[in-house]
Amino acid sequence: MIHFDTDYMEGAHPEVMRRLMETNDEQTAGYGADAYTAHAKELIRQACGQPQAAVHLLVGGTQTNATVIDALLARHEGVLAAETAHINVHEAGAIEATGHKVITLPTHSGKVRADEVAAYIRDFYRDDTYEHMVAPGMLYISHPTEYGTLYTLAELEALSRVCRETGIPCYMDGARLGYGLVAEGTDVTLQDIARLCDVFYIGGTKVGALFGEAVVASDPRRLPHFFPLIKQHGALLAKGRLLGIQFETLFTEGLYWRAADHAVRLAQKLKQLFVAKGYRFPFDSPTNQQFVCLPNEVIDRLLAHVTFELWGPRGERETVVRFVTSWATREEDVEKLGEILAICS
Amino acid sequence: MIHFDTDYMEGAHPEVMRRLMETNDEQTAGYGADAYTAHAKELIRQACGQPQAAVHLLVGGTQTNATVIDALLARHEGVLAAETAHINVHEAGAIEATGHKVITLPTHSGKVRADEVAAYIRDFYRDDTYEHMVAPGMLYISHPTEYGTLYTLAELEALSRVCRETGIPCYMDGARLGYGLVAEGTDVTLQDIARLCDVFYIGGTKVGALFGEAVVASDPRRLPHFFPLIKQHGALLAKGRLLGIQFETLFTEGLYWRAADHAVRLAQKLKQLFVAKGYRFPFDSPTNQQFVCLPNEVIDRLLAHVTFELWGPRGERETVVRFVTSWATREEDVEKLGEILAICS
Amino acid sequence: MIHFDTDYMEGAHPEVMRRLMETNDEQTAGYGADAYTAHAKELIRQACGQPQAAVHLLVGGTQTNATVIDALLARHEGVLAAETAHINVHEAGAIEATGHKVITLPTHSGKVRADEVAAYIRDFYRDDTYEHMVAPGMLYISHPTEYGTLYTLAELEALSRVCRETGIPCYMDGARLGYGLVAEGTDVTLQDIARLCDVFYIGGTKVGALFGEAVVASDPRRLPHFFPLIKQHGALLAKGRLLGIQFETLFTEGLYWRAADHAVRLAQKLKQLFVAKGYRFPFDSPTNQQFVCLPNEVIDRLLAHVTFELWGPRGERETVVRFVTSWATREEDVEKLGEILAICS
Amino acid sequence: MIHFDTDYMEGAHPEVMRRLMETNDEQTAGYGADAYTAHAKELIRQACGQPQAAVHLLVGGTQTNATVIDALLARHEGVLAAETAHINVHEAGAIEATGHKVITLPTHSGKVRADEVAAYIRDFYRDDTYEHMVAPGMLYISHPTEYGTLYTLAELEALSRVCRETGIPCYMDGARLGYGLVAEGTDVTLQDIARLCDVFYIGGTKVGALFGEAVVASDPRRLPHFFPLIKQHGALLAKGRLLGIQFETLFTEGLYWRAADHAVRLAQKLKQLFVAKGYRFPFDSPTNQQFVCLPNEVIDRLLAHVTFELWGPRGERETVVRFVTSWATREEDVEKLGEILAICS
Repeated sequence: MIHFDTDYMEGAHPEVMRRLMETNDEQTAGYGADAYTAHAKELIRQACGQPQAAVHLLVGGTQTNATVIDALLARHEGVLAAETAHINVHEAGAIEATGHKVITLPTHSGKVRADEVAAYIRDFYRDDTYEHMVAPGMLYISHPTEYGTLYTLAELEALSRVCRETGIPCYMDGARLGYGLVAEGTDVTLQDIARLCDVFYIGGTKVGALFGEAVVASDPRRLPHFFPLIKQHGALLAKGRLLGIQFETLFTEGLYWRAADHAVRLAQKLKQLFVAKGYRFPFDSPTNQQFVCLPNEVIDRLLAHVTFELWGPRGERETVVRFVTSWATREEDVEKLGEILAICS
Repeated sequence: MIHFDTDYMEGAHPEVMRRLMETNDEQTAGYGADAYTAHAKELIRQACGQPQAAVHLLVGGTQTNATVIDALLARHEGVLAAETAHINVHEAGAIEATGHKVITLPTHSGKVRADEVAAYIRDFYRDDTYEHMVAPGMLYISHPTEYGTLYTLAELEALSRVCRETGIPCYMDGARLGYGLVAEGTDVTLQDIARLCDVFYIGGTKVGALFGEAVVASDPRRLPHFFPLIKQHGALLAKGRLLGIQFETLFTEGLYWRAADHAVRLAQKLKQLFVAKGYRFPFDSPTNQQFVCLPNEVIDRLLAHVTFELWGPRGERETVVRFVTSWATREEDVEKLGEILAICS
Repeated sequence: MIHFDTDYMEGAHPEVMRRLMETNDEQTAGYGADAYTAHAKELIRQACGQPQAAVHLLVGGTQTNATVIDALLARHEGVLAAETAHINVHEAGAIEATGHKVITLPTHSGKVRADEVAAYIRDFYRDDTYEHMVAPGMLYISHPTEYGTLYTLAELEALSRVCRETGIPCYMDGARLGYGLVAEGTDVTLQDIARLCDVFYIGGTKVGALFGEAVVASDPRRLPHFFPLIKQHGALLAKGRLLGIQFETLFTEGLYWRAADHAVRLAQKLKQLFVAKGYRFPFDSPTNQQFVCLPNEVIDRLLAHVTFELWGPRGERETVVRFVTSWATREEDVEKLGEILAICS
Repeated sequence: MIHFDTDYMEGAHPEVMRRLMETNDEQTAGYGADAYTAHAKELIRQACGQPQAAVHLLVGGTQTNATVIDALLARHEGVLAAETAHINVHEAGAIEATGHKVITLPTHSGKVRADEVAAYIRDFYRDDTYEHMVAPGMLYISHPTEYGTLYTLAELEALSRVCRETGIPCYMDGARLGYGLVAEGTDVTLQDIARLCDVFYIGGTKVGALFGEAVVASDPRRLPHFFPLIKQHGALLAKGRLLGIQFETLFTEGLYWRAADHAVRLAQKLKQLFVAKGYRFPFDSPTNQQFVCLPNEVIDRLLAHVTFELWGPRGERETVVRFVTSWATREEDVEKLGEILAICS
């Protein structure tokens, strides 16, 4: 049996594990006040080209989204997001639990459009009753999106411009950021993101770490008093150096990019297996998640040999399924999938 | 200048004011522990045909919605509602401020459909990741809806059945309930509502009272510990007898129905003025709110003589506007509107 | 039977009722966008000597406290208050429900001391772990306090100074403010309060109105976006003009002061009845609430003729009880109490 | 320089690290749906003597407290705790952020007394105004406490009895539970705790794991729908098997007890160093935290050679300081401390 369910099926990249082992006996201060964490933050600032940036290391994605969004919004504000956004669908109401509404915008393969963001905000303030409504207080985007798609630099610049013109922060959920940065054809760099997004996070959990997400705010005044908020949200790791060591390793000698590159290359190879069979792809993903529409009987045959996720409820005759690679996926497993597919389809 | 903006432009029905004056010097216990409140609750129980019902008197609609929904939901649950629902659009995030998501369903002239509620709940639990999502914990409907439309008895029975089969309470926002109860052609009575909805409220603010909403739960176990929750939500009136006196008056000799009937009769008369002119009605409302699509130049001419609300942003050539009557609307004002319309259109 | 339970046993001052009746049929815009409300706010600004002040009219006290405190605090902050403060004891957790801790300070007959506030804040920031603790983000005081006691001008100035030096707003709960302003011996005026407190409210519910509390912020930037917050907290009255008319009446020809003065004069007369009998007063209240320590058998005899509140649980031999007068208390009832006391003690 | 600051200065017990390394390349389902987690839960159930217990693995202590307390309380309820409790002092308002008040009881070396819990609850319901107050909805205790002290079995039984008689759950914060279980003289076993506390957690972060806390509810109905609540609180680890592997290791061959025993033995040895010098101990701790009152000049001299924490603000002449050992403390470091102390005091 081979597995393409998610990109968090293994532990951490061997290099990360090696460093955790090497440092295991060292004694450091807790809660991120250690030298590893300081160094990791410095490496991230350098990689972002933002020497003044505030960097905060948290444990998981939903936790990071809730903490950042709670920090950025005033009490009367909500967060704009695509209706398919992770915060709107798959975080068990974590955003609402902090008291804030997720205001949904149309999704375009998981992305929002700058003109629609602008129109929403413009129409909002044109409505006489707007003070009875939840004010759009920030924009949430993800890159890659839930569907593995990516913003172009032009799209990101347009979103950033709308946000700055309307005075709301732009926040990017980068749970799979690495896979986006190395995708073929992308013209968006980490420096672009750091320049265009007011706050974003660099996902570690799905890109080589055991866990960990690095929140970056190029202007540190965007996240005042963020430390007690991290604590209040239960997101403060006692042994904070575990986050520091992991991100230090990932941002040394480009490991974060190398790990991501491996996954994306194999995902594209995997994609070609299905393309060759003529199956339909509902989203054109250049990253490590591939969505493909398969006949139900093919799905049933495949499931005897390989695991993957049904995307949404099973259709009558065919269903969208998701195959995911990671920094840990083995080339031989992709090849094996090709053989299985040859038999099953 | 005549006014059809809303149904809360005047004070209270003269009979209500008379009783408030008559009792003004009396001394009673606070927080609703007075005989007027007890009597009002008894009258409401009788009118509902539910001798065991719990009745709670609160001050305003948004407050009532937030308090009831917070009481009915567990922490991991959200409330199902039409995307046009008042709680989703016009309560400034009051529901989310209590930590709960409003889960939106398609709107059908402001109403939700039982089959769509059932499908949502069924699909939710079919999704493998449902524990990562906000569970549908109750249903919110309004009757009349935001658009003055009404559920039929069959529709209400179907919704109630879905709720009971899936184990979630059905809650009705009755901010304008009176206008619904007396509408021509409705087959839904107050007793039906009390039987089919687990919790609902009888709106006073818009139907003859200065303010006040009466929450009814036919099974009092539906709202345990509701008193401290009312207090916690800032919804407990110190001089609670003001609510008691008002609802006692409204539920004596059918004043609530009579007051509503006046408004609905005049609304239908008003509607005919526009029908006669051939204007289009986006919703077919048998209650006290009438939505009509008017050419922008007609709107501009009318506004010199009569006030009413634009419904949403102004269109390019025509715009939907709302005319509202109330228990206090004068017959002569409706006639005057007819004369104005003759000139302006 | 005569009653001294609370100061909210009657309706409203006859003058207030008269104005509500006179204006009942008028049609005005909702939600406070009417001329009565505008005029009431202007009268309050004048009385406060703060022509730029923001004034907001809400319905009740707990609601007002929760809305203001939620508006003034950042997410990581709590509110400093005496351990006996209404927000800490008698608001059913309304403050915590907005996500904020009430940080308690020692009570001195219901008051907090400036030096203790200063010491708390100083020690807080001296603690190495302060970022793991709830930051003191504002000060809550009440005037009169729960025990009818008053701050002197010097005390209020000291508290204000501490707040401004440490950068936290000073908020005064003025549920019974009128009774404090007219107390014999007080050197604190409404203008002093408006100058020294960043935000405070002028209580209407207990001083002549049916309901209503007027929030004042001398610097309107203290309460940005307060309107949607009022709505979100369920504190926005649809027929907002009811609040406007009441406060307009109370702030015309000094009615607010006259109504309060009546209550305080009778409270002092009542106090003398108990002083003459040699009973002990746990607090020296110059306002409309009087706390007196009575033998249990006296209490039992009195209760056959007069109602009042036990303050806390019944003691073994004697118990503190509370007698309250209001703008509506009748002189003859105080005299009658004298006669009853002569018999019962 | 040697360090006795905290018990989370190192990584994980070598045995735990070894298992994380061994399993690193394995592919498992996420979010705790893996065999390691299932096995860990089974081992914990066995150790607790509660074959039906629900076990949930979370990441950190504050997070666990907030999630459990939010799950156990109704909206109108608060949590009873010692005024020194971690949730009251050092969690940055995480409990209040979920909308609940921490109701404080007197501290007795960090412990609460059953008679005082009982008295609080009894007096609460005797108060006529109790519905205006936050109802005591559960009890929070810690074992060991913040001061390293322990409940006796008799004390724990008494607390449990009060809770069950009054119908509120008893919850134990076991962040350092291991150190309590192996303390000399304790008569409380893990089985006792599982029997007497409705919910408790077994701390991993401070007792041998990299991170992780195991929540146990002997009656699983105590924590319905806990999975989505974990997610909502941002406490759900994507690679849940990391928690499973760690707790499986800790609960195999008694590693949890052995690791704790090492720390406690060295803490007692360390204690004797100070006892021998005649210093005063404000708390008599049989666990791994030792609090000792030292002259300021001794503290200053020691700090040149050894790190430890000042407990609270520095006193005028002497200050309470804390020395903490862990499963990782080296015997030679304790001996070295003896030598340093000989020189410095």
